[in-house]
Amino acid sequence: MSAAVANFDDVLAAAARIAPHACTTPVLRSRALDGLAGCRLAFKAEHLQRGGAFKFRGAGNAVWALPAAEASRGVTTHSSGNHGGALALAAAGRGIRCHVVVPADAVRSKLAAIAAYGAVVHRCASGIAAREAACAQVVEATGARMVHPYADAAVIAGQGTAALELLAAAGPLDAVVVPVGGGGLAAGTALALAACAPQCRLYLAEPSGAADAAASLARGELVPASAPDTVCDGLRAGLGGPGFGILRRQGAEVLLVDDADTVAAMRLLWQRMKQVVEPSAAIAFAAVLGARERFAGLRVGLVLSGGNVDLDALPWAA
Amino acid sequence: MSAAVANFDDVLAAAARIAPHACTTPVLRSRALDGLAGCRLAFKAEHLQRGGAFKFRGAGNAVWALPAAEASRGVTTHSSGNHGGALALAAAGRGIRCHVVVPADAVRSKLAAIAAYGAVVHRCASGIAAREAACAQVVEATGARMVHPYADAAVIAGQGTAALELLAAAGPLDAVVVPVGGGGLAAGTALALAACAPQCRLYLAEPSGAADAAASLARGELVPASAPDTVCDGLRAGLGGPGFGILRRQGAEVLLVDDADTVAAMRLLWQRMKQVVEPSAAIAFAAVLGARERFAGLRVGLVLSGGNVDLDALPWAA
Repeated sequence: MSAAVANFDDVLAAAARIAPHACTTPVLRSRALDGLAGCRLAFKAEHLQRGGAFKFRGAGNAVWALPAAEASRGVTTHSSGNHGGALALAAAGRGIRCHVVVPADAVRSKLAAIAAYGAVVHRCASGIAAREAACAQVVEATGARMVHPYADAAVIAGQGTAALELLAAAGPLDAVVVPVGGGGLAAGTALALAACAPQCRLYLAEPSGAADAAASLARGELVPASAPDTVCDGLRAGLGGPGFGILRRQGAEVLLVDDADTVAAMRLLWQRMKQVVEPSAAIAFAAVLGARERFAGLRVGLVLSGGNVDLDALPWAA
Repeated sequence: MSAAVANFDDVLAAAARIAPHACTTPVLRSRALDGLAGCRLAFKAEHLQRGGAFKFRGAGNAVWALPAAEASRGVTTHSSGNHGGALALAAAGRGIRCHVVVPADAVRSKLAAIAAYGAVVHRCASGIAAREAACAQVVEATGARMVHPYADAAVIAGQGTAALELLAAAGPLDAVVVPVGGGGLAAGTALALAACAPQCRLYLAEPSGAADAAASLARGELVPASAPDTVCDGLRAGLGGPGFGILRRQGAEVLLVDDADTVAAMRLLWQRMKQVVEPSAAIAFAAVLGARERFAGLRVGLVLSGGNVDLDALPWAA
């Protein structure tokens, strides 16, 4: 894990570093959804990013920032899905080895992607303790560099590049809404907004069944996640320390969303925008629909964070 | 029905006429799918068109081409789905009345869209005879102008604008693959290619369970459709006379596709491109995957014709 705290210069450096590798994803708009939400929406389409999620930005920044000697020993991480796939893809791009520790509760299709991108997969029990222990073993055995999914300055800086592109393509925004799990995307977005759009409010969409970020920001200290229960498989991690500090400074506000509303928003995005997004992405749109009065008439940016869904287990079919 | 045969000037006129109303949809690319297909694919994303299908081009052209006095009596059509929704949407845009005759076997979500766009819906039995009889009644009662879903010069000309945009965005192409049902999109595409890319081959993807276009072009005369049996609900209509003449002149070639291959291609487009497309759109990609040797190394344009799917009845869940 990088020890230093990420700042806006790191976001700019990340943008330059990943430019040859990552996609500049489009910003999508929909009159139909604007009408439903009562505001002007700009969707940053990170489900169209390489690997199907914004995670390629942070993982790519971490991988390409490594000095050659260190890179040669490979990278490792623990991940229930998108970060693992992204790190595998970035490592393959640089031609280095990647080990991904995958917990028992990972989504099948995400596990398959990690393996397809060429990573060595290590299974472990679910829960953060088992994941970290398994990663420590890999580091011990191989000398690989740990790239934490969110509590890592290079990862946070990389994730911030999505908000830079969103602002550049959408123009001035009154509010930006991103999902929050471990807080990498949220913190990176906070860094970009603080520098480029200080008057723009940052909202974090969090599942009510995994509401540790809301608790932490309300109490002013990190509250550990306990027994997350949500359909948003990408948002089950507890908020990380580096992200917490950045989000607190930015005055980010959490909007809690029930899973049923997330699933309904996901259906709308599929049906009206024809975009395959996962629950952890749709939650940002659900948060806007659930707080219409707050966003009424505003220019609202949302990050559609990923689109890796098990097509055989759609949440509305459950 | 417009009696005159559409020509390329009509396509150009249609492009200018619908420009204020229709979207210039993007052309999507995917390294992953290029790798699978062994050629360079350019997907014209007509599922992102207004109403979720290319049909808005032809219907919009027909509606905005009407003289004011005639328009004031409204329009009518029969449609199992996307054309009906498109005509309703275009009529609403011009502020005129629209009657849509919908057969019993229409997809539920498409029927709902027709009503939501404000058309008066008339149900009838399935089969072309019942549809035409019901339309004739509407014309008799209201004086509405019939806008046939595909055997209409204005409709064919409008559909041809998608290929114009595809060529402009993708650059030179060696082949273009479009789905064929009634032949409106296919004939419009043929007109555009004949004028702008005469060396580009036109392929028509047709369900093997509704193969009347293949039979007609092989025999050199229109073979009526009989008992179509395919998951492609947008391709059950028999090839229309005007389309047949244009396609024959262009030397278009039919590629027959089994439903199972269409469904597999649809899954790939959802999973890898994150795009919600319907079976009648995915068939074009399935046709390319089923004839890899023919397309090897070529620059291939495909029209993703629509994205209106019943999310509660996905074909791979059947």
